[in-house]
Amino acid sequence: MRALRKLSPGPGFEMVEIPIPEVGPGDVLIEVLATSICGTDLHIVDWDPWAADHVITPVTVGHELTGIVRERGANVVEPEVGQLVSVESHVICNICDWCRTGQGHLCSSTELLGVHRDGAFAEYIVVPAQNAYVDPADMPLSIASLQESFGNAVHTATVAEVAGRKVLVTGSGPVGLMAIAVAKAKGARAVYTTDISDYRLDLAMTMGADLTVNPLKDDVEAVLSDATAGEGVDVLFEMSGAPAAIDMGFAALKPGGVAAMLGLPGKKIEFDFDDNIIFKGATVYGIVGRRISQTWLEMRGLIRSGAIDLAPVVTHRFALDDYEKAFALMASGQCGKVVMFPDPSLSDGPLS
Amino acid sequence: MRALRKLSPGPGFEMVEIPIPEVGPGDVLIEVLATSICGTDLHIVDWDPWAADHVITPVTVGHELTGIVRERGANVVEPEVGQLVSVESHVICNICDWCRTGQGHLCSSTELLGVHRDGAFAEYIVVPAQNAYVDPADMPLSIASLQESFGNAVHTATVAEVAGRKVLVTGSGPVGLMAIAVAKAKGARAVYTTDISDYRLDLAMTMGADLTVNPLKDDVEAVLSDATAGEGVDVLFEMSGAPAAIDMGFAALKPGGVAAMLGLPGKKIEFDFDDNIIFKGATVYGIVGRRISQTWLEMRGLIRSGAIDLAPVVTHRFALDDYEKAFALMASGQCGKVVMFPDPSLSDGPLS
Amino acid sequence: MRALRKLSPGPGFEMVEIPIPEVGPGDVLIEVLATSICGTDLHIVDWDPWAADHVITPVTVGHELTGIVRERGANVVEPEVGQLVSVESHVICNICDWCRTGQGHLCSSTELLGVHRDGAFAEYIVVPAQNAYVDPADMPLSIASLQESFGNAVHTATVAEVAGRKVLVTGSGPVGLMAIAVAKAKGARAVYTTDISDYRLDLAMTMGADLTVNPLKDDVEAVLSDATAGEGVDVLFEMSGAPAAIDMGFAALKPGGVAAMLGLPGKKIEFDFDDNIIFKGATVYGIVGRRISQTWLEMRGLIRSGAIDLAPVVTHRFALDDYEKAFALMASGQCGKVVMFPDPSLSDGPLS
Amino acid sequence: MRALRKLSPGPGFEMVEIPIPEVGPGDVLIEVLATSICGTDLHIVDWDPWAADHVITPVTVGHELTGIVRERGANVVEPEVGQLVSVESHVICNICDWCRTGQGHLCSSTELLGVHRDGAFAEYIVVPAQNAYVDPADMPLSIASLQESFGNAVHTATVAEVAGRKVLVTGSGPVGLMAIAVAKAKGARAVYTTDISDYRLDLAMTMGADLTVNPLKDDVEAVLSDATAGEGVDVLFEMSGAPAAIDMGFAALKPGGVAAMLGLPGKKIEFDFDDNIIFKGATVYGIVGRRISQTWLEMRGLIRSGAIDLAPVVTHRFALDDYEKAFALMASGQCGKVVMFPDPSLSDGPLS
Repeated sequence: MRALRKLSPGPGFEMVEIPIPEVGPGDVLIEVLATSICGTDLHIVDWDPWAADHVITPVTVGHELTGIVRERGANVVEPEVGQLVSVESHVICNICDWCRTGQGHLCSSTELLGVHRDGAFAEYIVVPAQNAYVDPADMPLSIASLQESFGNAVHTATVAEVAGRKVLVTGSGPVGLMAIAVAKAKGARAVYTTDISDYRLDLAMTMGADLTVNPLKDDVEAVLSDATAGEGVDVLFEMSGAPAAIDMGFAALKPGGVAAMLGLPGKKIEFDFDDNIIFKGATVYGIVGRRISQTWLEMRGLIRSGAIDLAPVVTHRFALDDYEKAFALMASGQCGKVVMFPDPSLSDGPLS
Repeated sequence: MRALRKLSPGPGFEMVEIPIPEVGPGDVLIEVLATSICGTDLHIVDWDPWAADHVITPVTVGHELTGIVRERGANVVEPEVGQLVSVESHVICNICDWCRTGQGHLCSSTELLGVHRDGAFAEYIVVPAQNAYVDPADMPLSIASLQESFGNAVHTATVAEVAGRKVLVTGSGPVGLMAIAVAKAKGARAVYTTDISDYRLDLAMTMGADLTVNPLKDDVEAVLSDATAGEGVDVLFEMSGAPAAIDMGFAALKPGGVAAMLGLPGKKIEFDFDDNIIFKGATVYGIVGRRISQTWLEMRGLIRSGAIDLAPVVTHRFALDDYEKAFALMASGQCGKVVMFPDPSLSDGPLS
Repeated sequence: MRALRKLSPGPGFEMVEIPIPEVGPGDVLIEVLATSICGTDLHIVDWDPWAADHVITPVTVGHELTGIVRERGANVVEPEVGQLVSVESHVICNICDWCRTGQGHLCSSTELLGVHRDGAFAEYIVVPAQNAYVDPADMPLSIASLQESFGNAVHTATVAEVAGRKVLVTGSGPVGLMAIAVAKAKGARAVYTTDISDYRLDLAMTMGADLTVNPLKDDVEAVLSDATAGEGVDVLFEMSGAPAAIDMGFAALKPGGVAAMLGLPGKKIEFDFDDNIIFKGATVYGIVGRRISQTWLEMRGLIRSGAIDLAPVVTHRFALDDYEKAFALMASGQCGKVVMFPDPSLSDGPLS
Repeated sequence: MRALRKLSPGPGFEMVEIPIPEVGPGDVLIEVLATSICGTDLHIVDWDPWAADHVITPVTVGHELTGIVRERGANVVEPEVGQLVSVESHVICNICDWCRTGQGHLCSSTELLGVHRDGAFAEYIVVPAQNAYVDPADMPLSIASLQESFGNAVHTATVAEVAGRKVLVTGSGPVGLMAIAVAKAKGARAVYTTDISDYRLDLAMTMGADLTVNPLKDDVEAVLSDATAGEGVDVLFEMSGAPAAIDMGFAALKPGGVAAMLGLPGKKIEFDFDDNIIFKGATVYGIVGRRISQTWLEMRGLIRSGAIDLAPVVTHRFALDDYEKAFALMASGQCGKVVMFPDPSLSDGPLS
């Protein structure tokens, strides 16, 4: 089969032919129908310090996918062969205290698809059966594929009550965009969002944002103060990792407010605990991955509620063989979610 | 001024002329523009055992209202004279442990408007300033008036997470109808609702219910089992007080489910704790009134989010002077919320 | 090996010789060192309606035990051979939504040791490795053995905040006794307890109760009103299943109080939802089993904190061969926890 | 009466004679029997930047006290004249959204005793009646006096479950010392504590700490790793405000852990959000003041539970007239809580 692999440490990767992987007793073999690109994949291809520290080569890259179960191991109860599934990328140990108490997202032995073991940019992938969640057979493939990333948004939007409340989303990348939709679906009174890309702020409006602000052009503090009658926001979803956005977000947070932080600064930053957290009596949640399997159940319920339309997040589709174009577009930032199809005839929309 | 009063113990009440009430230092005088009828008011006019135990005569009946602040006491900071306000009907002591810890709805010295002190079916009413919540000046009067009752629905829908979850509402009176809308606005995956009145089940569909069941006609257990793939519902809002509905609701509740109970059976009932609560590991919340002032803030936020349209709940409008027709209609059950206007020229819809 | 078995439907059971069970790939074989008797075991020996509905014969009875791991299956990572372990009696599926979200106690495919599969009243038992929790090698065997039952108390005492609060425990059987100790260890301001057995009320005082009441002798309502200055209790742990105790407990509960219900009435009972739950704004939790594995971690932490001494709960020790005496004592109610030892020379206290 | 006052901006303060203050309609006049010194008072006497920004002169300093109600305003229902009371130092507005929802500690119009209005270092003080909490008549005055400060510890220890869990307290000043006692009273499995003063670490052991570490002498990371079998702690109470302690505390926090931050760094600090909060899925609570009145009720309950002995925290007692000695001692750090008595004959222990 074809697979897009990082063969050795260093920048770049290559499309190569490798054997279809073998299925262990608790595993399923999935034919990949669609696989979407995550920001992390850019770091891996570029071989940034995080990638150099974590990626184990050789490895097939990619971790967001949907596909059909083609084979399953002897011990597997579900899913069944022939079902459409999407995949949780964190392979967890099931034994540690976190796994045993519904906190598998904190498992210290987690293996990541496309980082520690072979991932999704290929025609086939093998994962533990428990990582494969059954989708409705008629779910659009691009939407099915991005669910792992959607799960980040749902996890973020789960830790704070948003109904009837004002929410600020700092950072309008794909996860931020989906967080806007989730907050609106859960009855947020208003969702404000920031980004330095007008392209993404336009997408934010499409996803339901009530107001967008570009800090390169607008006085964010003044705009938000005006929008909230000087009161600030009840909830902050920090999705950018940018120090300036973090400061801006906490400055806008009301006393008693809740902040959920998903964006990674990538280094130590200067932070004012007194005014941002302590005097405010604020609550801050660190958000990593998806609660396994709680978040997947909530994702399923939210999608089936009909209250969320993720279609606008998918802005571009490519044949997997056109991966170089897909990655170049991702690097430009002029896109939402980018989805690749090993068999381009299966794309659920026009290919770029 | 005119006031609809219960002059002495026993059934019935009378429209009489009384002086406009005096304003104490912490009070506001409100000119009543619209006042809606609650089921409790029917019990009071009929003088049922609860009424006989609680109502202190003579008293002006009614406790749901909106109006304009016309005068305020010396110590009042807000609201201002001329503002449109709606009113919390529980006058609380501010001193007991519950009042001091944000649980004023549990204050043991609560005085109820229209029960323990003069209420809303009149041209004017005096209430403590803290009971008057400012509304937008352009809010439709019928919607403004029913907010106290809406607060019951919001309080009920606040105790359980409904986003992405399946919710059963047993009882589709006005509060049940509004609870449907709140659950949908907060992202419920599906809302099922029951009632023995097809009129109200039709209203339930208008309010956003996904499925309605009339236990007089349908096999509720079979319908719900079918609708939930045999799994049952995650959340139960019990709004009827009917023993059969309580049994039916708990039977449909999933293990680990949450039930919020607002409807009052009015007497001891037979109940299976083993199967309904203990083996299921269920959580049950008793819901009384509104969390003061938490629920009012949430109501305000939900209404302003635009995610909730309460207009269909208001099915009939009457001049206050036509109170006999209004009460007869309420007693028939062929209605949603019924609103009366002391000055019928101010009605925000056609009068019946 | 010797095993105490129910060979066919109907009252009674027999000590018989059967082969040591085989170990599956995910299982461990445990040599049983101590095994304690639960109230459920009495129902099984007596073959009450619940037993007739649930027990699958032939089966080795018993589900509370500690012992040494003697063998383990090929896939087992922990525990290790030679370790002292105690056992969770609910064998869960690991696949359903509850198992996958940290709510394994609600797994609908649960198999119970001693009910659906061979249990603990034997020289050896096989259980899935994940059901065996490692104990410190020097833990007294009687304490190690009763941990499953202790877990019921810990689970009960986890759902409500008790620190600085007044707690009523209705029912002072072994689980109730341990719940007293847990509530005290967590900083309860006072723990009141009821039972109709003075023997158990004496044990309750030993476990830390501040006040005990025997409803056969005392006016419980008056005593509790006096003890709480008329305010009632903040928290109710209902451990008896007795309708009179349930009424008494809820009557004593403050507005805004929390009730955790573990005792099983065994049939429908009359209950006043209005006064007990709805007007009070009370919260009620159904408690079943132990949160797997959350409760085991908390149990471990509480025991190792040194704040809890469970030794007084164990009132009698027997050789397993003296099971008839042990069961007769249990049936009399003149005991706390009764522990049996397959090898009586290993008893950690004088045998009865 | 005598009062220790800051007469004008700048360092120092003076003991002067002023009239006994007048009692407003909602106020009580309290004869101060004991008044303890808080770290904030040192900042005020030294006139640091925070003091220069906030203190309104002339003002009587001090905000921790106990005393007898000598007079009350016309509207006061409780407390009664002659009762012993201790005082919440945050005078709140009762009108804003926070005050109205049980979050008075976040009231944006808060006036602080001894900062914005006359405080406790005097023979008499006037406060709103709702700020005066009744104490048992036989409560030791030094303990009664420090309850406001104890409330900081209780508030901190309320946000995270500590029962059966490992807790790290960074900073062993008076509030940290009391937080140790609260954590132990609530069933913490172990409490570890740090400080750079061995004097305070000795006090920490007296208050119940299981292990103390002085970062000037010990390798904190190694000691804590050893104490927790490499797992880290479940809960962090950050009571120092020192950047090094904050880093150390978060480094020791387990994935999924909870941090409550009370200590104020006083300036921006460098912080690693990725490793400390986000990847860990940690929850962080900013702690300010006491939840009014929730924390006072919990304090009362904890003290009356008998599970907490605060006596060792009080290391020194002075006559109010010896305030210069008292402040010099406080500045040295060789003390726990220091309490002053306007009438030294009322001291509940030997005077220094």
